[in-house]
Amino acid sequence: MQLFKEGLVINPPSTNGTLTQPDSKLRARYHAVRNMSEQICRPLTPEDCVIQSMPDASPIRWHLAHTTWFFETFVLKPSRPGYSVYEPAFEYLFNSYYNQVGEQFPRSQRGLLSRPGMAEVMQYRQVVDHAIDELLEDEENGQLDELFAVLELGLHHEQQHQELMLTDVKHLFSCNPCSPVYRPRSDPHPAPLPPMDWMPGDEGVRWIGHDGEGFAYDNEGPRHEVLVQPHQLASRLVTCGEFLDFIDSGGYERPELWLSLGWQTVTQQAWRAPLYWQQHDGQWNHFTLAGREKLKPNEPVCHVSFFEADAYARWAGCRLPSEAEWELAAAENGDMVGATFAESQRFHPASAPSMDDGRLQQLFGDVWEWTASPYTPYPGYQAPEGAIGEYNGKFMCNQYVLRGGSCATSRSHIRATYRNFFPPEARWQFTGIRLAK
Amino acid sequence: MQLFKEGLVINPPSTNGTLTQPDSKLRARYHAVRNMSEQICRPLTPEDCVIQSMPDASPIRWHLAHTTWFFETFVLKPSRPGYSVYEPAFEYLFNSYYNQVGEQFPRSQRGLLSRPGMAEVMQYRQVVDHAIDELLEDEENGQLDELFAVLELGLHHEQQHQELMLTDVKHLFSCNPCSPVYRPRSDPHPAPLPPMDWMPGDEGVRWIGHDGEGFAYDNEGPRHEVLVQPHQLASRLVTCGEFLDFIDSGGYERPELWLSLGWQTVTQQAWRAPLYWQQHDGQWNHFTLAGREKLKPNEPVCHVSFFEADAYARWAGCRLPSEAEWELAAAENGDMVGATFAESQRFHPASAPSMDDGRLQQLFGDVWEWTASPYTPYPGYQAPEGAIGEYNGKFMCNQYVLRGGSCATSRSHIRATYRNFFPPEARWQFTGIRLAK
Amino acid sequence: MQLFKEGLVINPPSTNGTLTQPDSKLRARYHAVRNMSEQICRPLTPEDCVIQSMPDASPIRWHLAHTTWFFETFVLKPSRPGYSVYEPAFEYLFNSYYNQVGEQFPRSQRGLLSRPGMAEVMQYRQVVDHAIDELLEDEENGQLDELFAVLELGLHHEQQHQELMLTDVKHLFSCNPCSPVYRPRSDPHPAPLPPMDWMPGDEGVRWIGHDGEGFAYDNEGPRHEVLVQPHQLASRLVTCGEFLDFIDSGGYERPELWLSLGWQTVTQQAWRAPLYWQQHDGQWNHFTLAGREKLKPNEPVCHVSFFEADAYARWAGCRLPSEAEWELAAAENGDMVGATFAESQRFHPASAPSMDDGRLQQLFGDVWEWTASPYTPYPGYQAPEGAIGEYNGKFMCNQYVLRGGSCATSRSHIRATYRNFFPPEARWQFTGIRLAK
Amino acid sequence: MQLFKEGLVINPPSTNGTLTQPDSKLRARYHAVRNMSEQICRPLTPEDCVIQSMPDASPIRWHLAHTTWFFETFVLKPSRPGYSVYEPAFEYLFNSYYNQVGEQFPRSQRGLLSRPGMAEVMQYRQVVDHAIDELLEDEENGQLDELFAVLELGLHHEQQHQELMLTDVKHLFSCNPCSPVYRPRSDPHPAPLPPMDWMPGDEGVRWIGHDGEGFAYDNEGPRHEVLVQPHQLASRLVTCGEFLDFIDSGGYERPELWLSLGWQTVTQQAWRAPLYWQQHDGQWNHFTLAGREKLKPNEPVCHVSFFEADAYARWAGCRLPSEAEWELAAAENGDMVGATFAESQRFHPASAPSMDDGRLQQLFGDVWEWTASPYTPYPGYQAPEGAIGEYNGKFMCNQYVLRGGSCATSRSHIRATYRNFFPPEARWQFTGIRLAK
Repeated sequence: MQLFKEGLVINPPSTNGTLTQPDSKLRARYHAVRNMSEQICRPLTPEDCVIQSMPDASPIRWHLAHTTWFFETFVLKPSRPGYSVYEPAFEYLFNSYYNQVGEQFPRSQRGLLSRPGMAEVMQYRQVVDHAIDELLEDEENGQLDELFAVLELGLHHEQQHQELMLTDVKHLFSCNPCSPVYRPRSDPHPAPLPPMDWMPGDEGVRWIGHDGEGFAYDNEGPRHEVLVQPHQLASRLVTCGEFLDFIDSGGYERPELWLSLGWQTVTQQAWRAPLYWQQHDGQWNHFTLAGREKLKPNEPVCHVSFFEADAYARWAGCRLPSEAEWELAAAENGDMVGATFAESQRFHPASAPSMDDGRLQQLFGDVWEWTASPYTPYPGYQAPEGAIGEYNGKFMCNQYVLRGGSCATSRSHIRATYRNFFPPEARWQFTGIRLAK
Repeated sequence: MQLFKEGLVINPPSTNGTLTQPDSKLRARYHAVRNMSEQICRPLTPEDCVIQSMPDASPIRWHLAHTTWFFETFVLKPSRPGYSVYEPAFEYLFNSYYNQVGEQFPRSQRGLLSRPGMAEVMQYRQVVDHAIDELLEDEENGQLDELFAVLELGLHHEQQHQELMLTDVKHLFSCNPCSPVYRPRSDPHPAPLPPMDWMPGDEGVRWIGHDGEGFAYDNEGPRHEVLVQPHQLASRLVTCGEFLDFIDSGGYERPELWLSLGWQTVTQQAWRAPLYWQQHDGQWNHFTLAGREKLKPNEPVCHVSFFEADAYARWAGCRLPSEAEWELAAAENGDMVGATFAESQRFHPASAPSMDDGRLQQLFGDVWEWTASPYTPYPGYQAPEGAIGEYNGKFMCNQYVLRGGSCATSRSHIRATYRNFFPPEARWQFTGIRLAK
Repeated sequence: MQLFKEGLVINPPSTNGTLTQPDSKLRARYHAVRNMSEQICRPLTPEDCVIQSMPDASPIRWHLAHTTWFFETFVLKPSRPGYSVYEPAFEYLFNSYYNQVGEQFPRSQRGLLSRPGMAEVMQYRQVVDHAIDELLEDEENGQLDELFAVLELGLHHEQQHQELMLTDVKHLFSCNPCSPVYRPRSDPHPAPLPPMDWMPGDEGVRWIGHDGEGFAYDNEGPRHEVLVQPHQLASRLVTCGEFLDFIDSGGYERPELWLSLGWQTVTQQAWRAPLYWQQHDGQWNHFTLAGREKLKPNEPVCHVSFFEADAYARWAGCRLPSEAEWELAAAENGDMVGATFAESQRFHPASAPSMDDGRLQQLFGDVWEWTASPYTPYPGYQAPEGAIGEYNGKFMCNQYVLRGGSCATSRSHIRATYRNFFPPEARWQFTGIRLAK
Repeated sequence: MQLFKEGLVINPPSTNGTLTQPDSKLRARYHAVRNMSEQICRPLTPEDCVIQSMPDASPIRWHLAHTTWFFETFVLKPSRPGYSVYEPAFEYLFNSYYNQVGEQFPRSQRGLLSRPGMAEVMQYRQVVDHAIDELLEDEENGQLDELFAVLELGLHHEQQHQELMLTDVKHLFSCNPCSPVYRPRSDPHPAPLPPMDWMPGDEGVRWIGHDGEGFAYDNEGPRHEVLVQPHQLASRLVTCGEFLDFIDSGGYERPELWLSLGWQTVTQQAWRAPLYWQQHDGQWNHFTLAGREKLKPNEPVCHVSFFEADAYARWAGCRLPSEAEWELAAAENGDMVGATFAESQRFHPASAPSMDDGRLQQLFGDVWEWTASPYTPYPGYQAPEGAIGEYNGKFMCNQYVLRGGSCATSRSHIRATYRNFFPPEARWQFTGIRLAK
């Protein structure tokens, strides 16, 4: 079994950012983020919220409780002397992987817990939200920068779990032969697909990584110089139609296109197409959060593993970008105009706009873009002290960096320096392909 | 993975019984049995009803739907021309193992279905119950013995699933470190344990098996002669206290006491005590449907596998009874007075009464009694034609016969000829030990 | 992983037999049996003798050493005061499953031992044989019946391992795409197949089991009465041609023909034919100890599991015989004339003789015949005390009885009361089918 | 199961090297390398050579045949018109992973083949060696640079397999409770351990990778610039004594020291020390090719995984070097004086010399040094066309680079640019630790 991060890779407040956010704005943001989690659950039944459909996924109710446990453990307990936890058992049940906080209920067994149910977890959220409100009120007259920093981290942490809630529900629903609809969606009239142009990127010794202005996770720093070779990036994402050409030309049957571990996975898992794709009477469809749908050729291909992204690139005579190449491009194309984020409630990537303004399209939102870069520490990286920073570096092995966010990411959560990471075989996130050469 | 029966081993109406039950009584019985299923769910939340805690168990909501599917498939569809099923997908989702009816949703994935949820399944039950009512009304003026026979079978089938619902909930709750209580229980003041006496049984050529009067499953017949050796049966069940002596004398560490497969299981599963037992600070407790409790030494030992029953018997210098020995004894001691069945809502075996009237105690109810008999067809047994009888004989391999019912069995469901069966490693049913020699 | 017996189920000398064999005959028999093991190895290379091709099989060299360890442990050590074992490590390496003797090297890892090699094991055999010779010389003047009894057991034990050596080599060679030949074979000109007649068997209360005259394993007794129903047995074994009809009529694709566990095995293992059968360009061939050969339709079908035997019988509208039915028939047809045993060096079953003398054919030799009887203790059976009898009863679970010996069994090893046993999925022994009804 | 490279990562002749080796020298080198393989087998029995002790390892006889198959397939067949292969089945049996050559016998089943045995494989080697001799004779008058290049590759390929033969035999023998000795060894009188000094390395933009002079594998190029941060390297390897301090301070019980996947491996595999280490009566010993020995504290620690190397470095407040840091240091310290290679026949790493000349010690030989660098393609890397280059890039996933060779590597095989690679959990190679900071 693979271990995955569960969203938390946070920035130690003292090193990477000065948070001078006025308290009232912080309180508003706190409630906005918390409400978003509950809004995501609105189309769901109690039964939907309790099942773990695979070891990589967690029950929705677990996400709701774990993010609340985070605020209780890392904000309320340290700052409120004599704070009494809502329920001591939750310290065990909803700790994800913080060994320094205590032992954890086994991840693979999260789906065995029918209790606490949704009703009680929602009550747990209210109690903690109320205590945070009180805390913020007190602090409005005081000075507790460090506390606000951890609170800010908790909000980004919850946003990461919101994305997981959406991808975990998608996986759960995909297991049901009745193909439940999470949220219906209407697509705009299809527009012509713009050509895939090649845009030269920055080269030579360049700076990447976060500079400490505003929030960032610790794995985005330290900012440092890298040596970038001459290269070009594709102007848009690879589409479903283009990926079908790969399939039709025998892409899943030709070992020479694949990494050795990738070919092993293709063979053992009998992969023949991206996750959620099915062929029925010669027609391809795929499962989406709006139910099962006919494939639209101009939409970006999604739910591909690193192995598939890499094999596709090799088949196309290209390669995947490095994370430095991607970041330098994003730093120049960073306005996120027209990007598809979770706020759109679309929860599905959109086709590239046919109007081409000579810039890189779809860098942000839509789908996470696999890079060729193994997930390693930046030079000089040090994991922060204590439980809160305990687990950042520990995932830097056998995973690859993804960039740019997806249609399930909140716009306020993403930035050019953001490093997401998954093992090369993972497919249940909204993951796609941009080519480089 | 082991395949288990799921309760249905039914009696072909034409061969084994004449059902001349007046219709109104049948209707009353129908509603009584159906209500019992719903009553069992009353202490449960929707979340409790949707989880599959291990491959051998099924979600409660699945049991509720499957038993309804049974009436729809085997009673309504054949007898109501033009009957339109409630939901075509249910024919796939809630078929357990009837290949002649159609393909089945994989058993091990029943816990991946969050929908239909409890609300919809309860509605499904109402619709089917209503159609059955209509059918019975029509039939009151007609003659449809065969139909009534299948209906009767459906009720016994549902009673078997009621027992599984209780044992599956017990397993589910046992996985939760919070030890939820299904139903609180108060025990009478403890009485002295009667001695274990030895009672001689019938010997020579004797008749066993069901004689066709009243309902029986097909595996209980044909009635036939067997040759029984001289033997004695213990007057009561083995108790927790007696089983603790086995543990304390190293029973789980002495390979010479175990069957080879049993020892392999002990080693691989790290068994040290019956299922649900835990030792804490030198004290033994066990999980019950009333929560986690201190062990009571005079209660019958429960949740032991055939392997443990057999090893205990060897350690005690005895053996387990054959099913013929048990049945002959039960035929003589069949009044079931004082037996603990599901109707008591106790859901936990009771200590033997200390007053000893010279008869075998605890033959019925409390715990299923493992016999030494592999589950094989009686001489001349033939599985009935068609889907309804499709799966009886097919479980007659690598399983052992249990007799007498348990505290989770309905009194109206059990009889002296009843043959239950489970693989020798199964422990999640209420299974215990009676000695023979 | 399944645990299998490894041949040893021996008769406690004091109860089941009086061994009054003159010493010189015993010595001759000792050398004859021991030589047979070495003769079986003659066509083999050192490399052939060291590989374990599956967990159920053992390396040939292990068989040679284990049978020698048996004489050292159970004959030499108890009878020769101060006997010094050849190599103390062997007491661990070559103990199969005798917990009362000591710990055992894990069965599944026997193939990891390249040393001791064949040369050293042959030397080990010589040393032990020499010590046995000395012992017998001493004893010729003394009286040591008990010792002779154990020696006799050791010889039967070694004969059982000789059969396993042949079946284990067959499995090993079958894994090699070059299809090595163990021993070439020439078949007589094919004769017409006699019809399958039905012969009535004895019924009523009858005696079965060994009566204590001559050698027998303890599981063959006590002799006891059984009640036998009226029945008929097929006059000969089922042939490859008949089994092909079963395959051609979809036998491996029809769940209704199979036990539930059998169907599960068919599906998981993708069984489509007996072990060692392959279809090539529409023609069936099978691997034999004479290499890969075209299937001969009149030969008995072989290397079928109990599941396949049972499914075939159901397809044919018959059933398998019980072990009592078989034994009663064999007691009347016990002359073994014309039977194919290991002494013929044919190592392959032979077609039934076309001349039909009105008796049951092929009862002995050729292939072991699966019975419908689970392997259980006879009434009154008690495992003997001590290590030597430690492991008899412990295999009496989830296995089926086979009768009659095979083309890999020595004629001097088999008898009408002999009970062989294997799990229902085992196929690598020479196992076939006789029908009953 | 992990897929590993099997030694072949070869240099396309036209790009990376000009081979102007006089033919007679090539022939001498050919025979020297080929003889070395056979010399490695001299202490082995036929039985030693046929067992596969784990999926990562191969039988010795397989290595001998596969390296021969390589010359036959890539040298003889293309250059000798009408060349008839020694045995067509070998093209299937001894192809490791060259899909463009044809299908391969499954890697995990190499231990199921008892034939061809050692005798026949040695004959196969002689036939091919003879054909190569003839070829070289012919070519002495001709011009076949490309052929010589492939031949050279074949020799490096065989040297890689020689190292695997030694590590695979070590693993095989370690499975035997008798602890066989492959080759006795005498160690010099122990000398004091030199201190671990810190030596500054080159920084800034620097060149690494092979420059095309002489032989190199394709993964060593193209030579390219890298940006190196300021850093220091430890002057010698970490010793067994130092690693014992890590163990004694609870290194294997403290999750915070480990990568997440590493901790998962520690837990699942119950790692408590490096591979081959055992604690007996409080004393540590380890299995070596000279048998089981008491641990010597000054010897370099060996048989550690990347996970253990990384955890040790974290515990020591350091990190592992990058491959660029290592290569720049090796380019300056490249004389290999005093290094322990396979030629010494020691097959065990040696303690650091106590005389410290102010240079980095033990860079070459003794143990492969884990680097912090995931194994990725150098910028501009392209796998060569055709089968011979088919499999280089395909292993560039989830593996880490190791540098410097070991006591089982031939001195003529290693160089500063050489990139070895293994998955982070691999331990059966001679792998150790150098610290950086």
